[in-house]
Amino acid sequence: MDKKEYYVKQLAKTNKKNYENYVVGRIICLINDLSLKFITQQSVIIRGGKRALTDLYFPQIDLHVEVDEAYHKDRIDEDKMREADIVRVTNHAIERIDVTKNIELIHLLIDEVVKKIKNAVEEKKKDNTFIPWDIEAEYDTKTYINKGYIDLKEKVAFNRIVDACNCFGHNYIGYQRAKAKHPNERNKDLWFPKLYENKDWQNSISDDGKIIAERRKVNNPEFIKTYLLNLLNPEKYARKRIVFARVKGSLGDIMYRFKGLFEVNEEKSRKAQAIIYERKETRVKTYSTK
Amino acid sequence: MDKKEYYVKQLAKTNKKNYENYVVGRIICLINDLSLKFITQQSVIIRGGKRALTDLYFPQIDLHVEVDEAYHKDRIDEDKMREADIVRVTNHAIERIDVTKNIELIHLLIDEVVKKIKNAVEEKKKDNTFIPWDIEAEYDTKTYINKGYIDLKEKVAFNRIVDACNCFGHNYIGYQRAKAKHPNERNKDLWFPKLYENKDWQNSISDDGKIIAERRKVNNPEFIKTYLLNLLNPEKYARKRIVFARVKGSLGDIMYRFKGLFEVNEEKSRKAQAIIYERKETRVKTYSTK
Repeated sequence: MDKKEYYVKQLAKTNKKNYENYVVGRIICLINDLSLKFITQQSVIIRGGKRALTDLYFPQIDLHVEVDEAYHKDRIDEDKMREADIVRVTNHAIERIDVTKNIELIHLLIDEVVKKIKNAVEEKKKDNTFIPWDIEAEYDTKTYINKGYIDLKEKVAFNRIVDACNCFGHNYIGYQRAKAKHPNERNKDLWFPKLYENKDWQNSISDDGKIIAERRKVNNPEFIKTYLLNLLNPEKYARKRIVFARVKGSLGDIMYRFKGLFEVNEEKSRKAQAIIYERKETRVKTYSTK
Repeated sequence: MDKKEYYVKQLAKTNKKNYENYVVGRIICLINDLSLKFITQQSVIIRGGKRALTDLYFPQIDLHVEVDEAYHKDRIDEDKMREADIVRVTNHAIERIDVTKNIELIHLLIDEVVKKIKNAVEEKKKDNTFIPWDIEAEYDTKTYINKGYIDLKEKVAFNRIVDACNCFGHNYIGYQRAKAKHPNERNKDLWFPKLYENKDWQNSISDDGKIIAERRKVNNPEFIKTYLLNLLNPEKYARKRIVFARVKGSLGDIMYRFKGLFEVNEEKSRKAQAIIYERKETRVKTYSTK
């Protein structure tokens, strides 16, 4: 996908909501910066694994924009709670555009938000922490092999499991399974779990992204026992897992998003009757293909 | 309707076509001029009463913008013929944006078109012929009573027959019929015809807007004879008619658009077996309510 297709598809997501379409389109137009990535209708985890959508999100500067239409008081209160949740959980900033105002005022509100966004970009550029959006490099294995690492801060995601595998020294053409051995580090596996309830599993990840629980849906104490036993046999399972969670990308496509390096906590697992993983690292080393 | 609602509704018309939505939104955003009216998917008469849609139209400067997607050669040839037709019939300018290019180039093409539009507005302002868009005054009877006239050049249209009637001295609250007497000029009627085929009539207006033909669908020579006889009785019909044609507005609403002052041509009517009206004036006097 090139940036043209990305822009048009992201804006098309707002097509059903006319005010949102107008405001989001105007903000993107006035920012006029092809190095700044944006995502419309960004899903954000708020609490207890619940999700909320924000109208527009700029991942490089962690800023969201919400388009406020005319609602009842209940809805406004709900929105405020949701905003507090998002800020608390993600530490992102949220800007709001009140589209009940007249067009002149809406344009002024948009100008102010655009100024804030441009300032945030400038700040990051001064700190040398702004990474210009490169849509071709973004999903490309080579980008991360050349860099030497994958870091949680960079919000890395791949379209296919095979791309994630090949960042660690594999040279696969295709790979479909949810687990792969790390070809360069014996005590680590690569893992591509669904971190939400699905047919056989009731998996979850904590709001802060630090704890993963893997739970068989059928009540099966044997599973925990066998699993924890197997941990002692490094040929079977590795205690540490580099996790790429299966998620829906912003255009509805399946993606595998880097979540960090996790390690099993035996004691907590026994107590919870589920496998409990704790995040140990937010950055992992990458390897070129041998 | 205020400008906010107008902007959002006009852009919403392009929602099904993602490239059009993006390009039109960006042009409107970069022009950033609330005094310049725009219409998306403007219907234009090309020939033989056939109609074509252009993607974006600026009525104050008579300029259209077309968004060119990737088509087969046949479609491109058809588009070129259509463009030639529009230019020939309307004398309007047409600018094109080729959205098969990459996003950087599309943005440059848009910048150029925006510059041309702004220049055209500046030219008109220098000539004192630019009339700033005033959406509240646009459909308001008072605007035209105060002005003292209605002119074809200003593309005047009303939402209701009663508004047109009240520009000539009537003081109606409601009026639904297709004809009304002119309260101040005895030899003129106010007429609100459907100038297209409908249940009982096969009416038409010529491409250049100068000839109207009113034709009963049932072959009825008696109708012509009676009509032309009645013309001699000014209590029945007036020879001259101030015409507001019933049309679909740019947001799909019914409107009555001023077409000029027309007069019956008896000889041509007998020959054509239809009532033939010829345009005599493009400007008519308005009157305040007595």
